[in-house]
Amino acid sequence: MRLSPAISELIRALRMLPGVGPKSAQRMAFQILERQREGGLQLSQALAQAVERVGHCEVCRTLTEAQVCELCSDDARRNSGLLCIVETPADVLAIEQTGQYAGCYFVLMGHLSPLDGIGPEDIGLDRLAERLAADTISEIILATNPTIEGEATAHYIAELARQHNVSTSRIAHGVPVGGELEYVDQATLGHAFSGRKRVEFD
Amino acid sequence: MRLSPAISELIRALRMLPGVGPKSAQRMAFQILERQREGGLQLSQALAQAVERVGHCEVCRTLTEAQVCELCSDDARRNSGLLCIVETPADVLAIEQTGQYAGCYFVLMGHLSPLDGIGPEDIGLDRLAERLAADTISEIILATNPTIEGEATAHYIAELARQHNVSTSRIAHGVPVGGELEYVDQATLGHAFSGRKRVEFD
Repeated sequence: MRLSPAISELIRALRMLPGVGPKSAQRMAFQILERQREGGLQLSQALAQAVERVGHCEVCRTLTEAQVCELCSDDARRNSGLLCIVETPADVLAIEQTGQYAGCYFVLMGHLSPLDGIGPEDIGLDRLAERLAADTISEIILATNPTIEGEATAHYIAELARQHNVSTSRIAHGVPVGGELEYVDQATLGHAFSGRKRVEFD
Repeated sequence: MRLSPAISELIRALRMLPGVGPKSAQRMAFQILERQREGGLQLSQALAQAVERVGHCEVCRTLTEAQVCELCSDDARRNSGLLCIVETPADVLAIEQTGQYAGCYFVLMGHLSPLDGIGPEDIGLDRLAERLAADTISEIILATNPTIEGEATAHYIAELARQHNVSTSRIAHGVPVGGELEYVDQATLGHAFSGRKRVEFD
């Protein structure tokens, strides 16, 4: 049995979403057509508008509708002298949710990956170099993912920062809060030991 | 930190999809904007077109772009005299995939639910009654869900069919194929016993 072409096309298009397989896509399509036509139209418009309007911040490369994003427009953050390097806009959100950081960000929108042809310019490191040369950045905080590519990217940026005499730090890796040692992988546990901190008594 | 309005709106609209919570919606929105803008536009168009074009089959009420759906236009199926009653278009798909049934369908698009104000007319039973009176239907197969509402709906339709002297059957309930008795619930196991079949030796 063939479904109506518009329904098949909707199911096919929904499968583009991450984590949506054939069965979920079918369920979504039927739910929209049976009960949520209004919501379906809203989603259609939101998609078209977001794809049309959202571009990259001129300063930090994150996704935004404005030329310069909200965080980069914040004087207090700019004056902090801190620049945190992350891979994606979702990482910015995650760090902002901790409430522990009040500096600026630089969003690579990926990581170095020579095998895929992604070099320094593709992740905006030319622009980062200009900023290191011009701005008054006192510290670079490397918050790329703890993967092979993320580490290589962090290493490359640390070298770049050293050439501009900007001090650099890497976020700590170790046992996650609330985790149990028994279930933590070897590499993480190794980091937790090599990065141990002396207990200080005031 | 506030996200750009178009991004927030996209995340809000994506949450309308079944099974999509705030975190998945955010992941979907970022993936579309970072890597799949083309796919995002296609999805936008597919949604708008499906909502605009897809209506209900005049004969069986399933979702279709045509006035009469493909299955209802099939002479062989119409001549079979069999009419299977299901709750949703997804049920039609599921039954079609078994390859065991070659009759027509009637899709209720829901079930009787007096507490929610859903009566016989809301699920098209007036149209079903006309069809029972006019058509040459020899058997009604009740394939509503084995829930309280589904059973009540099946019961109501069985009564309707009796008034029109059309014989009625209910699909079998029992232990699912590949299931283990130990993990089957009591009601299902009860059905499996009361619906047991004599083993015949040819």
